[in-house]
Amino acid sequence: MKIKKVSIIGGGVIGGGWAARFLLNGWNVSVYDPDPEAQRKISEVLENARRSLPSLYDKTLPPEGTLTFHESLADAVSGATWIQESVPERLDLKHSIYAQIQEHAPGKAILGSSTSGFKPSQLQKEAIRPEQILVTHPFNPVYLLPLVELVPSAITSSAVVEQALNILNSIGMKPLHVRKEIDAHIADRLMEAVWRESLWLIKDEIATTEEIDDAIRYGFGLRWAQMGLFETYRIAGGEAGMKHFLHQFGPCLHWPWTKLIDVPELTETLINTISAQSDRQSGQLSIRELERLRDDNLVGMMRALKKSGSGAGGSINTHETNLAMPETEELPVTVSRQVPQSWADYNGHMNEANYLQASSQATDRFMELIGADAAYIAAGNSYFTAETHIRHLAEVKAGEHISITTQVLSSEGKKMQLFHRMFGPNGVLVATCETLQLHMDLKTRNTSLPSRKVAIKLNAYAKAHTVMPSPQGAGRYVGQIT
Amino acid sequence: MKIKKVSIIGGGVIGGGWAARFLLNGWNVSVYDPDPEAQRKISEVLENARRSLPSLYDKTLPPEGTLTFHESLADAVSGATWIQESVPERLDLKHSIYAQIQEHAPGKAILGSSTSGFKPSQLQKEAIRPEQILVTHPFNPVYLLPLVELVPSAITSSAVVEQALNILNSIGMKPLHVRKEIDAHIADRLMEAVWRESLWLIKDEIATTEEIDDAIRYGFGLRWAQMGLFETYRIAGGEAGMKHFLHQFGPCLHWPWTKLIDVPELTETLINTISAQSDRQSGQLSIRELERLRDDNLVGMMRALKKSGSGAGGSINTHETNLAMPETEELPVTVSRQVPQSWADYNGHMNEANYLQASSQATDRFMELIGADAAYIAAGNSYFTAETHIRHLAEVKAGEHISITTQVLSSEGKKMQLFHRMFGPNGVLVATCETLQLHMDLKTRNTSLPSRKVAIKLNAYAKAHTVMPSPQGAGRYVGQIT
Repeated sequence: MKIKKVSIIGGGVIGGGWAARFLLNGWNVSVYDPDPEAQRKISEVLENARRSLPSLYDKTLPPEGTLTFHESLADAVSGATWIQESVPERLDLKHSIYAQIQEHAPGKAILGSSTSGFKPSQLQKEAIRPEQILVTHPFNPVYLLPLVELVPSAITSSAVVEQALNILNSIGMKPLHVRKEIDAHIADRLMEAVWRESLWLIKDEIATTEEIDDAIRYGFGLRWAQMGLFETYRIAGGEAGMKHFLHQFGPCLHWPWTKLIDVPELTETLINTISAQSDRQSGQLSIRELERLRDDNLVGMMRALKKSGSGAGGSINTHETNLAMPETEELPVTVSRQVPQSWADYNGHMNEANYLQASSQATDRFMELIGADAAYIAAGNSYFTAETHIRHLAEVKAGEHISITTQVLSSEGKKMQLFHRMFGPNGVLVATCETLQLHMDLKTRNTSLPSRKVAIKLNAYAKAHTVMPSPQGAGRYVGQIT
Repeated sequence: MKIKKVSIIGGGVIGGGWAARFLLNGWNVSVYDPDPEAQRKISEVLENARRSLPSLYDKTLPPEGTLTFHESLADAVSGATWIQESVPERLDLKHSIYAQIQEHAPGKAILGSSTSGFKPSQLQKEAIRPEQILVTHPFNPVYLLPLVELVPSAITSSAVVEQALNILNSIGMKPLHVRKEIDAHIADRLMEAVWRESLWLIKDEIATTEEIDDAIRYGFGLRWAQMGLFETYRIAGGEAGMKHFLHQFGPCLHWPWTKLIDVPELTETLINTISAQSDRQSGQLSIRELERLRDDNLVGMMRALKKSGSGAGGSINTHETNLAMPETEELPVTVSRQVPQSWADYNGHMNEANYLQASSQATDRFMELIGADAAYIAAGNSYFTAETHIRHLAEVKAGEHISITTQVLSSEGKKMQLFHRMFGPNGVLVATCETLQLHMDLKTRNTSLPSRKVAIKLNAYAKAHTVMPSPQGAGRYVGQIT
């Protein structure tokens, strides 16, 4: 498959985030930004992205594409499938950039704008090919948060919209197709509402920046991160339903609960107050440290949502399903992944339990290979682990890549004994895991024989693997003198 | 220690949530609610709470208090340390209830109101002891979300405020002391702002309930859940700081980004539109199922935040530190905890990796017992796991309680060999874990001898434990015929 090219016009935090998202999903990325600092800025965003984005997945992302920087906009956009514009929010500037882009870019390319505020019809004014322009508004950090507001105008071609939706899905994002253009789209209007009210609370000395943040993150922020506003309120309505909730809550709309009818003036005094409060709240951490804290928290929370598939967890699961497993060599490669930050413990390396978690993933994958897959399990059959032996041979750090090969030691009736070898960077053997699996009937919770189909596939592996030399470390007991 | 009593006046979703939060933290709870359905409603909230709240912690909560229902308000409040009022939002109703409460409740008790909107000075009007009244406004689900807006008026006694802060902390909550009373306090003002804007978006047919929820939960909701608004924007400002961000973002305040200047009318048409959209979005799940989905997601995300201690993760860590470990019998009890929902896998039981996670927790606790604690590790010493053997003897389900005892099999120089027995409900042995630990120098990453102090304590355990019979299953290799 030919590697596709994305062109990043404007390489700040947002442009850099786009670059990282595409690059780590296997696209070639060409950057155009006259800022002499652009290369440094993007490399910093990339460093953050490399340590966090792959940690969302229990598989490996495709090999990184190639990142190039260009002094000429024409070079940067030539042959691109997607051009993403993230320049400052000035309409005249965007118009002049679009004129240059459209002179050199393929006529069928997607021209997406990261604008927070402008409508696509405003962006399209004076364009030679308005039909290729639409808003694709992402959220910082672009390499982690899945949301993209995709806003076409009536003139944007439906082929461009469809292709943009497909591509955004293919790089693990969640395009939200906004059907009617409006200033600031959807999400930023909601954020703006909170922002205005928060400014009043600070100006009126009701609360500090930290108190407002706490009012969000210890309470409703946790609800919104997984369900949003309406599904949360639906629950509040109880069995009586959403209508009941609306009737009950409706009158509050006319109570003096907000200052929304007025806009606070961002005076120097108010700016100084907010800056000073923010320094007191977060000043002990550099922006870099805050970014890493944010990213580690996001990865942890988003990985937690994989379990139910709610919100961002669903995007990760979908993307993961489409990620390829590595080629199998002599032994099947059953795991290939990055070690997430959340797997590191107080000793500064991967916790022992996560060695077994990765090995368990290897067993799951091997089960799939012999046909004991999700459908087989749904039909009431599975394997349970009866016994496990792990040797920890070397440390693995968060962010490092590990892979596991699986060898069948024996298979007989309901029993299947596997030997996983875990390799770290440079092919170093970091652990082995020997595991005895018993085939189970999930209804009776008793052992049972595998289906004929599964047994045949398993035995084929066993036949090939058991003639290999018995692996070093197999059959060991704990503390055995070698 | 005498068990304290809390009195719950009004037993709906909020009152029930308070009841569950106190009960599961060892308080006796007496409920007064003339609603004949109150007992059923509270028992449903309790069922949700029992499966989720203990899952936040890696230790056991104190034994549950006693729950009683009372037909007389006088009985319910007599001798109570805390009275929590959660009746409908009508000021005259609250005043008349307070008069009855204050007639029978101890003069030193805390009288907290769950009101979303009223100021404490409004609540205190006509009260015989206004100084004991304050707002303690929680967030649904009260048994999981830590935030409580604690709002005193100028008349509320400082002793009441201080005691309320202490008690809320002691039951794992995060009291946010609102220093200046204001309608709707802080959080609900922010939510109200989003609510109004969302109603406009639906009314103007820009977005549906599901699209608005998606705009939140795939994007900024994930940021707010851990950092809130201002810390997130601080990052957006980059190294240039918060002031830079404010100057850059300030002008947007005057752009046409919101409909905030007007209040949408909640007409029957709008109510019907929202209800129908909400049904399409979430109608495939009952409220009960939605609650469980929400709770499982919250537990997963909040557990993920324990790692960094951000937001709700910090509340959990603090509360956990203060939870007692069970008494040690013949062998030290090194784990006592509930199995979180997030530990269950596709086979409907605790995943094998979590057996090792719990055993790893047992090793950590045993290290503490011999003085290899956080300070010891911070000084550059620790134990690493070299080898592990696990026998899975019985299934454990999410929500069940497990405990682990630890026996020293041998200790010699840098080596420490432990045998963990894991017990499930009714004392059934569900697993054993034999583990060889090596003492390490964290700087050189080489093995080393433990400190004299640690060695002495370890040897004392070893002396007592090695004369016991060797445990069944120790020294086994995988697949060994017994």
